[in-house]
Amino acid sequence: MRKVFQQELREVQERLVEIAELVEIAIKQATTAFATSDVVLAEQVIDDGEQIDQLAKALDELTIDILARQQPVASDLRLMVGSLRMSSSLERMADLAQHIAQLSRYRYPESAIPQGLRKTFAKMGEIDVEMAAKLVSLLREQDQAVIDEIRDLDDALDELHAKVFEKVLTEKVQASGPTGVVDATLASRYHERFGDHAVNITKQMNFFLSGELE
Amino acid sequence: MRKVFQQELREVQERLVEIAELVEIAIKQATTAFATSDVVLAEQVIDDGEQIDQLAKALDELTIDILARQQPVASDLRLMVGSLRMSSSLERMADLAQHIAQLSRYRYPESAIPQGLRKTFAKMGEIDVEMAAKLVSLLREQDQAVIDEIRDLDDALDELHAKVFEKVLTEKVQASGPTGVVDATLASRYHERFGDHAVNITKQMNFFLSGELE
Repeated sequence: MRKVFQQELREVQERLVEIAELVEIAIKQATTAFATSDVVLAEQVIDDGEQIDQLAKALDELTIDILARQQPVASDLRLMVGSLRMSSSLERMADLAQHIAQLSRYRYPESAIPQGLRKTFAKMGEIDVEMAAKLVSLLREQDQAVIDEIRDLDDALDELHAKVFEKVLTEKVQASGPTGVVDATLASRYHERFGDHAVNITKQMNFFLSGELE
Repeated sequence: MRKVFQQELREVQERLVEIAELVEIAIKQATTAFATSDVVLAEQVIDDGEQIDQLAKALDELTIDILARQQPVASDLRLMVGSLRMSSSLERMADLAQHIAQLSRYRYPESAIPQGLRKTFAKMGEIDVEMAAKLVSLLREQDQAVIDEIRDLDDALDELHAKVFEKVLTEKVQASGPTGVVDATLASRYHERFGDHAVNITKQMNFFLSGELE
């Protein structure tokens, strides 16, 4: 019985890693599609989102089933609670990757990125991808040091988000008209939220590892 | 023991209602502050957000404690799982109310609402408030019919969200410059997400009431 239970807990952990790996692929492809106006790649990200939704739902079903049958306590219970919340955040991160991909598809064959913001968005995309890779590592290795690294990346992302608005509002990118302003606003917001969800996941992992609810 | 347990389940339900009532107040005040550029009211919404965060955190602690001590199954377990997720959505709805309030504070003494969008945002605000009131009712009375009413309101909100972009992109509100475009884009997005979280809560309540995971 105990052995089955341990195996089920490992299964939850492995599935979280699997979903995080798919999120990493999604955000890598989405930011590439956004930077290069690659509409085929954008459509692939949008199509692949469904798979992540299904995996997250299946993980929730497994987690609830374990809660009902095994009635875990202490860190095992915290992993179950964390799993329910981390699956939501991972699903949301995949949604945001899809939104970023969608922006480039809407504007195709034009670029969704206004002049003067190309480097800023490239940097935001790089940080997203790095955060996602670190999340995979955190979920797999459970090394608490990675939590701070992810939070530092989120701070960098927030600074770039503020910089986008500063540039847009001081009319440095006005030439692109309202469409460019809308796209820059939404894209920047999506990147910011992507980072927030990565931080949410670090909070759940911190709760799992330390028992402390942030 | 059983009696204590039943009382604890009621406590979870009552706390969810309490938080939803505060979200209803927050969104009512935030949309009023936004419509009337009332900076004092906006600041109140921003200050009150902290209370909702604390209540949500305390509810999570209670829920996890009940999971550990009472090891609920069936609909009792579904209420616990739902509570963990609904508290997140309610907290997020309060955050979005704060964001809407913040927009009016940033632009004060100017209005954050570009010309030509006043009526659309007034309508979005009304729908938000109506959704929040219906959530309170759903959490209190657990009447499944309210779920559809909330989802219909979300559809109406999504239509208005599309209308905002249509107006902004066809340059009907261009006169307000990039600031107006940024504000309209963000405000509309906040309203849309507010509705999405209300729908998330209906999914959790549907799961609790019917056992079906959407």
